[in-house]
Amino acid sequence: MVFKKITLIGQSDEGFEAAVDDAVDRAEETLENVYWVEVDELMVELGEDGRTYQAEATVAFKLE
Amino acid sequence: MVFKKITLIGQSDEGFEAAVDDAVDRAEETLENVYWVEVDELMVELGEDGRTYQAEATVAFKLE
Amino acid sequence: MVFKKITLIGQSDEGFEAAVDDAVDRAEETLENVYWVEVDELMVELGEDGRTYQAEATVAFKLE
Amino acid sequence: MVFKKITLIGQSDEGFEAAVDDAVDRAEETLENVYWVEVDELMVELGEDGRTYQAEATVAFKLE
Amino acid sequence: MVFKKITLIGQSDEGFEAAVDDAVDRAEETLENVYWVEVDELMVELGEDGRTYQAEATVAFKLE
Amino acid sequence: MVFKKITLIGQSDEGFEAAVDDAVDRAEETLENVYWVEVDELMVELGEDGRTYQAEATVAFKLE
Amino acid sequence: MVFKKITLIGQSDEGFEAAVDDAVDRAEETLENVYWVEVDELMVELGEDGRTYQAEATVAFKLE
Amino acid sequence: MVFKKITLIGQSDEGFEAAVDDAVDRAEETLENVYWVEVDELMVELGEDGRTYQAEATVAFKLE
Amino acid sequence: MVFKKITLIGQSDEGFEAAVDDAVDRAEETLENVYWVEVDELMVELGEDGRTYQAEATVAFKLE
Amino acid sequence: MVFKKITLIGQSDEGFEAAVDDAVDRAEETLENVYWVEVDELMVELGEDGRTYQAEATVAFKLE
Amino acid sequence: MVFKKITLIGQSDEGFEAAVDDAVDRAEETLENVYWVEVDELMVELGEDGRTYQAEATVAFKLE
Amino acid sequence: MVFKKITLIGQSDEGFEAAVDDAVDRAEETLENVYWVEVDELMVELGEDGRTYQAEATVAFKLE
Repeated sequence: MVFKKITLIGQSDEGFEAAVDDAVDRAEETLENVYWVEVDELMVELGEDGRTYQAEATVAFKLE
Repeated sequence: MVFKKITLIGQSDEGFEAAVDDAVDRAEETLENVYWVEVDELMVELGEDGRTYQAEATVAFKLE
Repeated sequence: MVFKKITLIGQSDEGFEAAVDDAVDRAEETLENVYWVEVDELMVELGEDGRTYQAEATVAFKLE
Repeated sequence: MVFKKITLIGQSDEGFEAAVDDAVDRAEETLENVYWVEVDELMVELGEDGRTYQAEATVAFKLE
Repeated sequence: MVFKKITLIGQSDEGFEAAVDDAVDRAEETLENVYWVEVDELMVELGEDGRTYQAEATVAFKLE
Repeated sequence: MVFKKITLIGQSDEGFEAAVDDAVDRAEETLENVYWVEVDELMVELGEDGRTYQAEATVAFKLE
Repeated sequence: MVFKKITLIGQSDEGFEAAVDDAVDRAEETLENVYWVEVDELMVELGEDGRTYQAEATVAFKLE
Repeated sequence: MVFKKITLIGQSDEGFEAAVDDAVDRAEETLENVYWVEVDELMVELGEDGRTYQAEATVAFKLE
Repeated sequence: MVFKKITLIGQSDEGFEAAVDDAVDRAEETLENVYWVEVDELMVELGEDGRTYQAEATVAFKLE
Repeated sequence: MVFKKITLIGQSDEGFEAAVDDAVDRAEETLENVYWVEVDELMVELGEDGRTYQAEATVAFKLE
Repeated sequence: MVFKKITLIGQSDEGFEAAVDDAVDRAEETLENVYWVEVDELMVELGEDGRTYQAEATVAFKLE
Repeated sequence: MVFKKITLIGQSDEGFEAAVDDAVDRAEETLENVYWVEVDELMVELGEDGRTYQAEATVAFKLE
């Protein structure tokens, strides 16, 4: 069983969990076996329409 | 006054604060003087019954 | 366009987002163009009146 | 000539070399020009059927 | 909006910028929305036909 | 379920796997639920009676 | 003699040296005794009007 | 022979050596075979009664 | 309560504590509420008139 | 007693221990008092004649 | 085939490539088989006669 | 002007400055132009005849 890791950045204007979930949701759109996620970095972007919480997450999934 | 640090991993299906609190609650079951906690790593585990938020936390307490 | 980074530590007894927001709010009291924030460290302080969530955040703003 | 790096985790119940080879073998199933591998992390998982040696490896290959 | 990061190594016998550009050019051959690049490592390879400047670059692009 | 991590250094004159196993064996003498081990550092000590392979390993186990 | 360090991000569409110089030039507009600069990070931003080379630089100057 | 590492923080209003010694002295109150200490971090706390020098030290001892 | 961190380098020909104190003394000339200091780096400069001990220190103070 | 550290890269097509030993053997050809070795990095190079295991090792020896 | 690594700092008032080349040129004055160079750090020193670009480079060469 | 860096470990039963000085003194026995020293690590070894303070120091000197 071999796992592969990819790095995604999710975003949300609610909070950090939601930003991590955003990345995992996107990964699960195309990947079958996502096993775990490591949060690499948390950031906040400030723009005209308020604050956007961002999370860089390393997503680990089983290779078929 | 000498402090000691131990490393615990807490979990929760609510979010990262709850995962950190899980580790601190468990530490306070056996330790008197927990002073502060440093969050080392945030992770998410994906299983059949959904996502589990995990936090590795270094807990600092005063040695008697 | 040159950016400058400063390091602040915000606090809140609600959670990590609130602690990050605390630092950003304080920065925006004196700084015009805050563009983004990097979360360096998350901590929890335990005292008589409960847990205080802390976030060390690097705040990046545009220099006039 | 441009190289690309991907991150895989191989496993074996023999040892660390075998775990690294497991990752490289899987990479070579789909990639033509694997040039080198950097070992990022070595781990051991303990389960009912004994110890599984794991290696996280960054695999570098030439892009066509 | 979710971003993905991949790691490429570009090369040039002119200099480091050219090596970074080499990686970005290759990424833009197959990727639509490259937003930014982080330079991870700078190296020089010495061979019979002189020095080759290399740059390992993390390329961030928007996922469709 | 809360996990705790401790750091041990195992040794062997056979090789690195044996040194890691030395640390895990010692942990399992007193700990029930060792789940996984992270290898932090690999070293070799040279003495009169040859080379001793050493491994610093972080051992994670479930707290009762 | 005490030195202080601040962190700036300079930009240029020419290259990394020019981006570092951009940060140093801006520092020297308001600071007398800039002694040295440490390059923390090199990045490239891609936009409609091409590539912008960025350099995060720690600037050290003597405090009066 | 297996070693274990624990992390202590010693303090003294004299200096860093004294702070490290404070941690080692406390360790030797309960541990037989302390072999070596690695200094992880040096800090100073400022309070009403002056400066307190602190040292976070990883203490390695032989397990019986 | 929000804290800010700045980075100073103190010097002394006596030793490292004196170099750290040099940085803290200078900070306290202009800052009211210095709470703690983290030592980032220790260096020694060698010149005609002997050795100068240097300490890079991150100074944390409460923002009014 | 003062120690010096040098950095060598050993290679072997057998495994990582053999690659570390390769570096130590070469060091002991010219150095009397090699005391210990720290493994910095493990790599594998893939070429026409198979896989070569590489180990970057910091070798510490006593200066006469 | 065993490689050795040494650390040099080159300088130039032209730019970073020239500073790296300065270190490599000096290494090749006394070393036969320089294979590759890793750039560890880029700095700029400011003096009366302008800016000097510096590069700390780890030079890898084959041991005879 | 090119600098070279070497890594030494000095020792003393007095304290950390004395351990750093031990390394620098030994370097100056064979090297002309030692310019500066960076302290990488501070350790304490415990033996029958008490505590020995150790300092790993990177010594930078000008190459002729």
